Amino acid sequence: MTLPANMTNSSFDGLWADLQPVGRDPRTDGYRRFAWTREDATLREWFAGAAAARGLEVTVDRAGNQWAWWGDPDTTGPGIVIGSHLDSVPDGGAFDGPLGVISAFAALDALRAAGFVPSRPVGVVNFGDEEGARFGVACAGSRLITGALAADRALALKDDDGVSMAEALRCFPGAKGDTSGADPYAVGRDDEAVRRVGVFVELHIEQGRELCDLDRPIGVGSSIWAHGRWRFSLEGEANHAGTTRLADRCDPMLDLAAAITRARELAGDHGVLATCGKVVVEPNGVNAIPSRVTGWLDARGADPAAVRAMVADFDVGLVSGSPAGPSLVRSTLTEESWTDATAFDTFLVARLSALCGGAPVLATGAGHDAGILANAGVPAAMLFVRNPTGVSHSPAEHAARDDCLHGVGALAAVIRDLT
Amino acid sequence: MTLPANMTNSSFDGLWADLQPVGRDPRTDGYRRFAWTREDATLREWFAGAAAARGLEVTVDRAGNQWAWWGDPDTTGPGIVIGSHLDSVPDGGAFDGPLGVISAFAALDALRAAGFVPSRPVGVVNFGDEEGARFGVACAGSRLITGALAADRALALKDDDGVSMAEALRCFPGAKGDTSGADPYAVGRDDEAVRRVGVFVELHIEQGRELCDLDRPIGVGSSIWAHGRWRFSLEGEANHAGTTRLADRCDPMLDLAAAITRARELAGDHGVLATCGKVVVEPNGVNAIPSRVTGWLDARGADPAAVRAMVADFDVGLVSGSPAGPSLVRSTLTEESWTDATAFDTFLVARLSALCGGAPVLATGAGHDAGILANAGVPAAMLFVRNPTGVSHSPAEHAARDDCLHGVGALAAVIRDLT
Repeated sequence: MTLPANMTNSSFDGLWADLQPVGRDPRTDGYRRFAWTREDATLREWFAGAAAARGLEVTVDRAGNQWAWWGDPDTTGPGIVIGSHLDSVPDGGAFDGPLGVISAFAALDALRAAGFVPSRPVGVVNFGDEEGARFGVACAGSRLITGALAADRALALKDDDGVSMAEALRCFPGAKGDTSGADPYAVGRDDEAVRRVGVFVELHIEQGRELCDLDRPIGVGSSIWAHGRWRFSLEGEANHAGTTRLADRCDPMLDLAAAITRARELAGDHGVLATCGKVVVEPNGVNAIPSRVTGWLDARGADPAAVRAMVADFDVGLVSGSPAGPSLVRSTLTEESWTDATAFDTFLVARLSALCGGAPVLATGAGHDAGILANAGVPAAMLFVRNPTGVSHSPAEHAARDDCLHGVGALAAVIRDLT
Repeated sequence: MTLPANMTNSSFDGLWADLQPVGRDPRTDGYRRFAWTREDATLREWFAGAAAARGLEVTVDRAGNQWAWWGDPDTTGPGIVIGSHLDSVPDGGAFDGPLGVISAFAALDALRAAGFVPSRPVGVVNFGDEEGARFGVACAGSRLITGALAADRALALKDDDGVSMAEALRCFPGAKGDTSGADPYAVGRDDEAVRRVGVFVELHIEQGRELCDLDRPIGVGSSIWAHGRWRFSLEGEANHAGTTRLADRCDPMLDLAAAITRARELAGDHGVLATCGKVVVEPNGVNAIPSRVTGWLDARGADPAAVRAMVADFDVGLVSGSPAGPSLVRSTLTEESWTDATAFDTFLVARLSALCGGAPVLATGAGHDAGILANAGVPAAMLFVRNPTGVSHSPAEHAARDDCLHGVGALAAVIRDLT
């Protein structure tokens, strides 16, 4: 069976064009698509609309993840699911997440245009709150349904404005139970939703340059590094910047500076990645010594023990203070999330690589819903689409259209092979 | 003439109680009273109401500063003006600013209750936007009317949400020209308003512990240190925290850390004060290497040349990068404001000290509207009220009620003496 290329292209382009303006900041060309916001509501309407236009039945699980089904997994057994997420980091790129969902719909269009009828159900999924940009826990949608994240803990998470996830869900347009929202009173583990997934293949833009170096448009994910997030709080004493002697200060900004520098040094020492990408200063006034500074540490690596050791050293450093001397600042370090290293299904990885003409097999430092499902025992794997600069989580994130269409073809080939 | 103490006390307490809830954050007990916000509108209504209740005529100058007059400076010549400001830093204290305005009204009440009739006009002023917490330029109200800040520059200043001062003024309740707002189309230098001020005495809580160490309730300000604000912008490259190798990063957070540490070291070296109290990170995502970090440097000292030298060294350091090596981050340093050292009127300072029973004379590192007026040639000076902890720009800022009432008495004595 040959896929009709023109049809694939126009289907992909149309889906891409529809989604492109949602949550876009015209000043940066970056995206701000946070969970359970107005932008998220628009994204979910788009997903439900794309499914309806294809006669797919949309269901919403207990975490608000959207599933569009071709065939009925409840009567004919677990299906093969493709898809990804639609939310973004602050000022994120257009590809991280949406490429996987758009490519999934486009792959279905191509298969149906070629007259293909699957022997088992095929699903397209939109996982909610993958980036964790608003409430701090990544992959919240897949963690909730697999039980990796407890409902009470999730609902109590707060955004930077002090709004809890429970409040955000209650105020969300789809909260009453239609196919675009989640019922905050029903949030929790959803074994039934997970059981419907026989196999999960998530297509994603590569977030590095390995495929570029290898001159290959498509790669297959072999594993996800161990990764976690920690919040460190540094409490000092607010005071006037113009009248408080240097020796009398208890300034947590100095401890922040030391912590940022130390995180980078320790990352090198332990052979892991560590990043301080988010900082909140209170009261954040030019002429006020801060009362409190909160920073976040993101740490990852192939070896979970090395990541743990790096974070332990970082914690010790927080207490020891800044170069200005032993600090009076009170520090606390809190783990917000931790995911152990995840190996994808070995058979599936080999099969995908073969189906994609011997595509290279890569590990990644980025967390994905596919990893959460793999940890819950679902056979899962990933396809990566080449990223010429390797840049991601940025408006500069980009993949060539031809490579994206390669990805659509790969997904179609996977469905043909596995159904 | 003896002031009726009971009356003074109840007048002060009543004014204090009225103002106390405006802009208060119940979580911290701190205040958020930014220029040209809803809170500012309430403060201005309070001021106009307090003036009306005393039969004082309120005028508003071209920068929106409010003046309540007992007597008419346009017919009987320049008056003696007392007062301060009502706005705050983020999460500021209750005393910085309001104490001077409340004490001014209370001093008038005490004098009138004692049957005193001034021989020249007496004014109470509420200077707008003294802290510069919203638009970045401190003492904007007094700088505008004295010509130290050009109207077009002021109106183009933007807050953190991208709202310009011109837009804020247009949306402000009093924008149509009543006694609580400013007409954005008329903002600018106001020689007439300045000419009405024959003498200005600003009462303020002390922002240090000198009076405490000296065991005196009241002090007199002799001078204000040179002080300025600089904004430094560090532009890197946004990227994914989990997939970008340490060596491939262009992470401006590392440069921020180096800049904060260096500012403190240089402050010690040059014998000045330097503070990084405000930081804005973009996009500020846990798993995103920042694209840009903006920091602010506040620097002050008795010797203007030392402050300038410290800032010049800081600028050199920005270019040299972080301990991780020479930086690819692009840095710029922009001066947002600069005020040279200001000596108050020598005769007035000596007179105030004598009137207050030989009160100690102190220099301060904090900028004030009294300094801006002094630089514009207005005879000006300050009274400081003891602050037991020295803490200011913080919810912990405090002065004892007895010391505040001492301040009211001092202001009344000054008016009696100078009119």
